[in-house]
Amino acid sequence: MKEYGHGGDIYKYDNKEMIDFSSNVNPKGLPLSVKNAIIDNIDEYSKYPDPNCRELKIALEEYHNIPKSYVVCGNGAADIIFRVVLAKKPKKALIVVPTFSEYEIALNVVECEIKYHVLLEKDNYMLTSTILEKLEEDIHMIFICNPNNPTGHVIEKNLMIKIAEEAKKKNILLVVDECFNDFLVEGEKYTLIPYLKENLQVVILKAFTKNYAMAGLRVGYCLSSNLEFNKIIENTLQPWSVSTVGMKAGVAALKEKEYLEESKKQNDESRKYLVSNLKDMGFKLFDSKANYIFFYSNIENLDEKTKEYSILIRDCSNYIGLEKGYYRIAVKSQEDNVTLIKVLREITQRIR
Amino acid sequence: MKEYGHGGDIYKYDNKEMIDFSSNVNPKGLPLSVKNAIIDNIDEYSKYPDPNCRELKIALEEYHNIPKSYVVCGNGAADIIFRVVLAKKPKKALIVVPTFSEYEIALNVVECEIKYHVLLEKDNYMLTSTILEKLEEDIHMIFICNPNNPTGHVIEKNLMIKIAEEAKKKNILLVVDECFNDFLVEGEKYTLIPYLKENLQVVILKAFTKNYAMAGLRVGYCLSSNLEFNKIIENTLQPWSVSTVGMKAGVAALKEKEYLEESKKQNDESRKYLVSNLKDMGFKLFDSKANYIFFYSNIENLDEKTKEYSILIRDCSNYIGLEKGYYRIAVKSQEDNVTLIKVLREITQRIR
Repeated sequence: MKEYGHGGDIYKYDNKEMIDFSSNVNPKGLPLSVKNAIIDNIDEYSKYPDPNCRELKIALEEYHNIPKSYVVCGNGAADIIFRVVLAKKPKKALIVVPTFSEYEIALNVVECEIKYHVLLEKDNYMLTSTILEKLEEDIHMIFICNPNNPTGHVIEKNLMIKIAEEAKKKNILLVVDECFNDFLVEGEKYTLIPYLKENLQVVILKAFTKNYAMAGLRVGYCLSSNLEFNKIIENTLQPWSVSTVGMKAGVAALKEKEYLEESKKQNDESRKYLVSNLKDMGFKLFDSKANYIFFYSNIENLDEKTKEYSILIRDCSNYIGLEKGYYRIAVKSQEDNVTLIKVLREITQRIR
Repeated sequence: MKEYGHGGDIYKYDNKEMIDFSSNVNPKGLPLSVKNAIIDNIDEYSKYPDPNCRELKIALEEYHNIPKSYVVCGNGAADIIFRVVLAKKPKKALIVVPTFSEYEIALNVVECEIKYHVLLEKDNYMLTSTILEKLEEDIHMIFICNPNNPTGHVIEKNLMIKIAEEAKKKNILLVVDECFNDFLVEGEKYTLIPYLKENLQVVILKAFTKNYAMAGLRVGYCLSSNLEFNKIIENTLQPWSVSTVGMKAGVAALKEKEYLEESKKQNDESRKYLVSNLKDMGFKLFDSKANYIFFYSNIENLDEKTKEYSILIRDCSNYIGLEKGYYRIAVKSQEDNVTLIKVLREITQRIR
């Protein structure tokens, strides 16, 4: 049986305040307009939510410039992962690892045979064209996270297009998790959204969780031009999976273009600050482009040591393809980032 | 593929205000303390929710006077139905029908063979001891809704105990949906909660949806003393299925004892008002004890006729075991109830 294997479980430390670098949520917090939407619509929450998420789909149609029929909404992207897998019921699937573990957990629910394409340290954990050889006809489904979690790497655009073309040719459902795309500088260059129309085999996962700091509200969605399959995904689990409060928050969030631009800029600056300090301390880094940084350290149980300073970092040893010594930290507010660097300097100096 | 087959879809009428008698939610609306909890905790929603729902489980432990290890929380009771089915993966299941359709939809996800125990009009749609003969060893799971939706009937306590004993003896997972129990006068007489400890085969479904008018917030749970199975249910789908806003609302709601008592009293009075008027108009009633009323009318497409007056009632013809002519209405505020009766009197007079 699986155990909870993610970051962000700040609740097990009772009342002790922890600075949470273990989950990758926008440090700016909820946009003010989202807070207002939650409050302004409070009388709506006594009714059942719209099972078709009409209002949110219309907002996403405009935001992404795609037909609203391409959208299926869910209780966070995690809900969508399970829905897509249960809708497809693949017999054999491929996962590019190390990556977010819920893909595998969902595939296990349908007793799917799982193949792994393991990213290698010698490639700096970047996806290379060797993936193309793995796309065999008997693979029903493939999960790729772009930018990848925990490495923060972005897949080169031409390679991603080739993968999508191969998936189309071989009838493989390609699920691309683009939940962290919004934090990329020039993220629009890397998304497969413009290719949805011509490729029925592509499903893109998106969420409000990270970019709008809405993790506690649970709103995610997927995009696909396969309208028949979208219906199946939508009807696979319960009909009221997105709460009214989540929908109202989502609709408000999509208008927050400036908030998103600022977040991106702030993230880029803060990441550079963290990267240069981490390098300076001798940690091994792998060139993340996202709102989190993946690194290796030979300091034993570094996550336990930061906990003594009330700081949570993500021990990545439970990711398939990784081992002890790999960690992921979120890019947080500059105040928190400075605290982390100070603590890490103390720990490294204590040890040397 | 299933289509949405429930009440409460007020969203498809664009901007037209409909009085919704098709979904059974407490007409008092959200308790004030719940609204306050939603607003007071607004800064918490940027973090991931507690995957273990610790705070809510502690509140439920106190509320139900059971160990918190008995509790599994979900994104509404509907989420729990799918989780329990996916956790159990039954090969053969029994459903007492007519009833809430999500049991069947969930069983179809695991390609389960479904047997029906059909309630009969000659029995006034009451469950009788003939159910006991259907509890055969090869049945893995049984769903019973008590009080039943749409009939509003309560199962006689001794019969319910016998069913639970048989289920224990024959290793059948007995899922009892008690989501509407809180609206019963003396509901505590009919719940199986006191029998959980001695019977590992019983799972009780509960929600905040109807009793606290929290349908749009999505919080439900189940109770069972089978701690090993509870872990499996909890780990079957995504780890963050209950939003932080839902959890905070749930914790606040459980303190609302007076609200619940008033609701129950108000519901009882309003139901009596509706029942006597419906009988007076010649509708055939079936003695509901819940916060909704099930009836038969030979007026063709009665639900379409009430729609012309901006009133939604639930056409029950898509329930297994029922046909055209059966309807369900919620017990709503006295103002709305009076409007409904006025409209129904107009319709019946127009026809005669």
